[in-house]
Amino acid sequence: MVDVPVVVLGLGNVGRSFVSQILSQRAFHDRHYGLRLSIRAVSDSQGLVCTGDGGLPDTELAAILKHKAAGRPLAEWPGGGACDSPLDAAQQGTAPGSVVVDCSAADATADALQWALEAGHRIVLANKKPLTQDLAVWNRLTHTPEGTWNLGRSRWETTVGSGLPVVATLHRLVGSGDPVVSMDGALSGTLGYVMTGLQQGKAFSEVVSEAKASGYTEPDPRDDLGGVDVARKALILARGMGLDLSLADVEIESLYPEEVADLTVDEFMKALPTLNQGFQSHCAAAARRNACLRYVASVSADAVRVGLQEVTLDSPLGQLQGTDNLVQFLSGWYNPQPLVLQGRGAGVDATAAGVLSDVVDLAFTHP
Amino acid sequence: MVDVPVVVLGLGNVGRSFVSQILSQRAFHDRHYGLRLSIRAVSDSQGLVCTGDGGLPDTELAAILKHKAAGRPLAEWPGGGACDSPLDAAQQGTAPGSVVVDCSAADATADALQWALEAGHRIVLANKKPLTQDLAVWNRLTHTPEGTWNLGRSRWETTVGSGLPVVATLHRLVGSGDPVVSMDGALSGTLGYVMTGLQQGKAFSEVVSEAKASGYTEPDPRDDLGGVDVARKALILARGMGLDLSLADVEIESLYPEEVADLTVDEFMKALPTLNQGFQSHCAAAARRNACLRYVASVSADAVRVGLQEVTLDSPLGQLQGTDNLVQFLSGWYNPQPLVLQGRGAGVDATAAGVLSDVVDLAFTHP
Repeated sequence: MVDVPVVVLGLGNVGRSFVSQILSQRAFHDRHYGLRLSIRAVSDSQGLVCTGDGGLPDTELAAILKHKAAGRPLAEWPGGGACDSPLDAAQQGTAPGSVVVDCSAADATADALQWALEAGHRIVLANKKPLTQDLAVWNRLTHTPEGTWNLGRSRWETTVGSGLPVVATLHRLVGSGDPVVSMDGALSGTLGYVMTGLQQGKAFSEVVSEAKASGYTEPDPRDDLGGVDVARKALILARGMGLDLSLADVEIESLYPEEVADLTVDEFMKALPTLNQGFQSHCAAAARRNACLRYVASVSADAVRVGLQEVTLDSPLGQLQGTDNLVQFLSGWYNPQPLVLQGRGAGVDATAAGVLSDVVDLAFTHP
Repeated sequence: MVDVPVVVLGLGNVGRSFVSQILSQRAFHDRHYGLRLSIRAVSDSQGLVCTGDGGLPDTELAAILKHKAAGRPLAEWPGGGACDSPLDAAQQGTAPGSVVVDCSAADATADALQWALEAGHRIVLANKKPLTQDLAVWNRLTHTPEGTWNLGRSRWETTVGSGLPVVATLHRLVGSGDPVVSMDGALSGTLGYVMTGLQQGKAFSEVVSEAKASGYTEPDPRDDLGGVDVARKALILARGMGLDLSLADVEIESLYPEEVADLTVDEFMKALPTLNQGFQSHCAAAARRNACLRYVASVSADAVRVGLQEVTLDSPLGQLQGTDNLVQFLSGWYNPQPLVLQGRGAGVDATAAGVLSDVVDLAFTHP
């Protein structure tokens, strides 16, 4: 049996589901993979619970999950301690050969992850932020000091398309030397929901309000509608195909105008109907051409762009409904017919399962 | 730089393309992966060329590819030697930490692959045969002696769907403990071509003759039409989700009747029109229900079946055209909307590229 020490940064929804899945899959991973994932440390933005022994007891971890689910910080956990930063958490929590798992949504974990790699640990990211900072940070998190892919130590599958194996597929194409020409797709379940609603004839204000009420959007829907989250995913794919680009190089079309950018969330929701007419005529024009609108990320050596695209109704993107994601790869061997991946591209548990797959994958690499 | 000794069993179309891609990607794998894939031995059914040094020179390998492409056996290559069996080739060819790559289509490689694992080497299979023999052979080729998945040493991505990451996707789902409920799909480019042709109104005899003339079928089209090749793929998926089944457990519907099984190929081709009427009425009945026929592999704990299915025109399988493959996974997290993979599921170069991806993947695991 191989013991894999795990350090978890971030105990939000994804972090808690990840820990919970490790606990519930213990017998399975033991029997079928010969693995014991020993959680040595869990941390949130200010607190840390860690152990010098083999791992935190499962009973304590289960109790910590309840404590956090009730909205209480880790620093208040009996036996928990303060933690200055994710770096502090990683340094205190790791044992030799650990996997440091970033389930946070913070920029601030980049230091911790870089330190972990330099110290000989492995890393898994569900967090897009560290991978979309400066190119130098991307290189340190994904490449060896010699400049080669560090896939034996670093994985980030769920940063694009949640559990859909988008990044793994890209790595397989790239790894064989098959030149990836382009990746196009719908990478936001939230915007997929909005676009499908518009296609069905709903008003923009109505479908955004529905999406917010159903919990499909961030608390401020502009965080989705602005397109930056999709742009981060497009950038991760672009960098994954070898393009040396930064977030500023991604052309981003926002679904709301400058004028409503500074409103409060309540004011913004009230102002939404002023945008209805524009979307309605845009959709109607598309429909007259047997097409519909989708919010599409397009990645190629020529340009990386996220924004509205008119697609024909019988195309894979035109047939996509609801919150499903879809990515089409064109490469040397997949051309003119693309390689297509489709399915749920969001969801706390599916994302956490994808993180767990990355950890299991890394357990087969050199420790 | 990591040197990975490679031994190639089988120098048919896929084996030659695999060697050729290694040669043409040398600078790429060096620069981006820090890898040198040293081909220490190549073999065909009777011959072996191998070296005791770091690897066969690229110039010699390129010349060997030409020699084989001209239809000449390896045993005739100057400096080549006889080889009794794939096991003999593997034993003579390997150096410590080798990857033995099965690009043959023979049952006989199973011994060589089992020996390689026991001797501490790694294996990659493009060949379905060894993985569809007795369950005991499957277990030895894919699991450790302790009964856990041996993914650090064994890969077989291209046995299902060619370069499409079908097996990798299954491994990711299984690895996280997400219970895979079913896999359904079109896994034969040849039968996809036939089914699309029938849907377009072509006669069965016409579309099979076309497929044969275009090189989409085996020399004897019954090898495709009988469904056994698809059944092998279905079995590999079934075993991959943990079902202890054998080929005899797969329900196989053949597209030709017993009566024509013993004819010569020429006689069979001449007898094809007698089958037209049956397919025509079956297709017409489906069309009246806004459906069409597809040759589908269905894998679940309840049953593994390959055969004709009527699917609605607006379903993913109904929309599939030509030789593309498609697989839908239903699991705990991908339900009711499936995870879908679609794209080219055949082709010599795409398959060889998938084999190369497996080798690169394994290069990141413990040697």
